Amino acid sequence: MSISMYVASSPRLIAQLKALDAILAKAAAHAEAKKIDPAVLLASRLFPDMFAFTRQVQIACDFAKGTVARLAGVEVPSYADNEQTLAELQARIAKTIAFIETIPAVQIDGSETRDINVKAGPRELQFKGLDYLIGYALPNFYFHVTTAYNILRHNGVEIGKRDYLGA
Amino acid sequence: MSISMYVASSPRLIAQLKALDAILAKAAAHAEAKKIDPAVLLASRLFPDMFAFTRQVQIACDFAKGTVARLAGVEVPSYADNEQTLAELQARIAKTIAFIETIPAVQIDGSETRDINVKAGPRELQFKGLDYLIGYALPNFYFHVTTAYNILRHNGVEIGKRDYLGA
Repeated sequence: MSISMYVASSPRLIAQLKALDAILAKAAAHAEAKKIDPAVLLASRLFPDMFAFTRQVQIACDFAKGTVARLAGVEVPSYADNEQTLAELQARIAKTIAFIETIPAVQIDGSETRDINVKAGPRELQFKGLDYLIGYALPNFYFHVTTAYNILRHNGVEIGKRDYLGA
Repeated sequence: MSISMYVASSPRLIAQLKALDAILAKAAAHAEAKKIDPAVLLASRLFPDMFAFTRQVQIACDFAKGTVARLAGVEVPSYADNEQTLAELQARIAKTIAFIETIPAVQIDGSETRDINVKAGPRELQFKGLDYLIGYALPNFYFHVTTAYNILRHNGVEIGKRDYLGA
């Protein structure tokens, strides 16, 4: 198989989201075993002005669905940011995966030169599809997945690199 | 420009390493301004059995050079893990970038089906080049860059997502 915009995005994002889902399941089991209120994990953050765990997972999902939608030229599905539990975050991950699976490879392949406009806070960013995927969307996606992982690790949840890799 | 194994690896790794280098420069400036011994940052970690900052940066460099070398079919350069200061870690990043720049695009493009064997702790992992890059090398690389960033953030170094993105 050759590398393509599809191969570098959808199946990889899905695999990483499945790994994240399994990490959330481990966090839930850990909380139950150690009698920790899962809400403490959800609200945990690495520094006062960083996003908490819940927001990290939400944003990871947003980058995943945004990446695929924008490359495919379809509207980015909008999800309410109202998850209150690990199970609800897992449902958001599942919904994100289900959306990505609706977009066929042919709709993403060849998107290297597609014009992509992204609002990032107050900024309007303009990319071609290739730079958007390789230089912006994937680095951001991995950033938020890793930070979610790091927040759990920092709180003693027993996960390791193999969980992150889904290996 | 079309996506290719080269486009998805070398220039992206270099850009992210340059962003990491700038983050280390900010950490050094922060330590000086706040009268913090930089050695405290270097030895900081998010949990007792996670790697400290120094090791995170070393491993990020190792994934970067390992990725490019393995895809190109050349020997992975070996660096002693003996950095003691932020400046020495910045030198390792510079050395890694210099190595990556020696490998021409033509030597990486077409590596999708190249057999890649990696030792990961006690495990021997076998990949084709495409799965190695997309599913293993890049996720690991971003993991360690992000974790290095998170350790500094957790210690109050004033960096933000734009520093991570090098934007």
